[in-house]
Amino acid sequence: MNAVALISGGLDSATAAAMAVADGYTLYALTICYGQRHLREVDAARAVAAALGAREHKVVDIALREIGGSALTADIPVPESRSADEMAAGIPVTYVPARNTIFLAVALGYAEVVGAETLVLGVNQVDYSGYPDCREEFLAAFETLANLATKAGVEGTAHFRVYAPLLHLTKAEIIREGLRLGVDYGLTWSCYAGGDVACGRCDSCLLRLAGFREAGVRDPQPYAEY
Amino acid sequence: MNAVALISGGLDSATAAAMAVADGYTLYALTICYGQRHLREVDAARAVAAALGAREHKVVDIALREIGGSALTADIPVPESRSADEMAAGIPVTYVPARNTIFLAVALGYAEVVGAETLVLGVNQVDYSGYPDCREEFLAAFETLANLATKAGVEGTAHFRVYAPLLHLTKAEIIREGLRLGVDYGLTWSCYAGGDVACGRCDSCLLRLAGFREAGVRDPQPYAEY
Repeated sequence: MNAVALISGGLDSATAAAMAVADGYTLYALTICYGQRHLREVDAARAVAAALGAREHKVVDIALREIGGSALTADIPVPESRSADEMAAGIPVTYVPARNTIFLAVALGYAEVVGAETLVLGVNQVDYSGYPDCREEFLAAFETLANLATKAGVEGTAHFRVYAPLLHLTKAEIIREGLRLGVDYGLTWSCYAGGDVACGRCDSCLLRLAGFREAGVRDPQPYAEY
Repeated sequence: MNAVALISGGLDSATAAAMAVADGYTLYALTICYGQRHLREVDAARAVAAALGAREHKVVDIALREIGGSALTADIPVPESRSADEMAAGIPVTYVPARNTIFLAVALGYAEVVGAETLVLGVNQVDYSGYPDCREEFLAAFETLANLATKAGVEGTAHFRVYAPLLHLTKAEIIREGLRLGVDYGLTWSCYAGGDVACGRCDSCLLRLAGFREAGVRDPQPYAEY
């Protein structure tokens, strides 16, 4: 069984892909380089894909910076030191318009080429409730679309599905599951800022740190502060 | 009213976009440069977008060649001199896995940024019946997805729809409509091959030539042979 796993370089996608490997899938890793500010994430994705024994790892450039509209691809400041309540209130400026739709669409194309039916995505509805494209009904709609959009789907040689095993887990549960499966979180990179070490202040660092704290484990990556 | 129009440089997308302009839309043109063999198409797209008075024209590179799987992005020969029956039999090698899903996904992101609710797509179910992602049910599934995938859709500030006015038209009907609206087909480029002039033998040239013949109009672009 082949699976295409979207690997961002972050903690969540590494864990989701490790769960697919544990389920017996042969992994085809896919990283979308979409004009995010820091290529550090792509280096992390390469390390994660290699550590998980991916059969292939494709890095596909998409110039989303051309379109803008997000703090991750345009000159909008990334928020710092926000509380959990502040993060939960509304859709953050780090939202990238249609990002998961675009990512899943490319993953679908790759899946059709390598004969995979499963698209692995590390989305999570608990911590990122503000992102519309991290919700179960979005994923279900994508599955419907995928089976209408493709030669393999229409001819019935594949039935595409999105495997999003982290959807309802807390960050601490994700981390515990990953550690149980031997994921080396020292290879991953979550920070939205661009330093040599993680900033410890952006939403992504704060969620990660809180997750490790709740899991009762020390995050193996260094931080500038926290 | 703003609309994002996917402009490939070909005859169909130019006509669909012209129909949107005639309907009163302000056009935001989007061309996806996806590793198709010939950049001639992108030059044609720029000329078409300018002629239609597009407010912006974004050209977004996506390295689909990395994934391959199509005669348009990999080293698979493009078929020549096929009959209409041969073209109608099955999905051709020029099928690009998940292409319209990827294109519409990027268009959706762009639409959200510029405040457009309408995505204009020149797909046609008559001549390209073999492409799964040129069918009405695919487009309907994408609309459902789009309204679940986006901040604007979820917050109810936009209701996205796909405007595909050519879906049920024959090539001759498309050409007649475009000429009525003043589309300059001399600016467009349909050929799959890479010559200085259109080859006149690939599926795309053959469909175009047959369309002009049936419309009783001479194609303004030169051909190597036909």
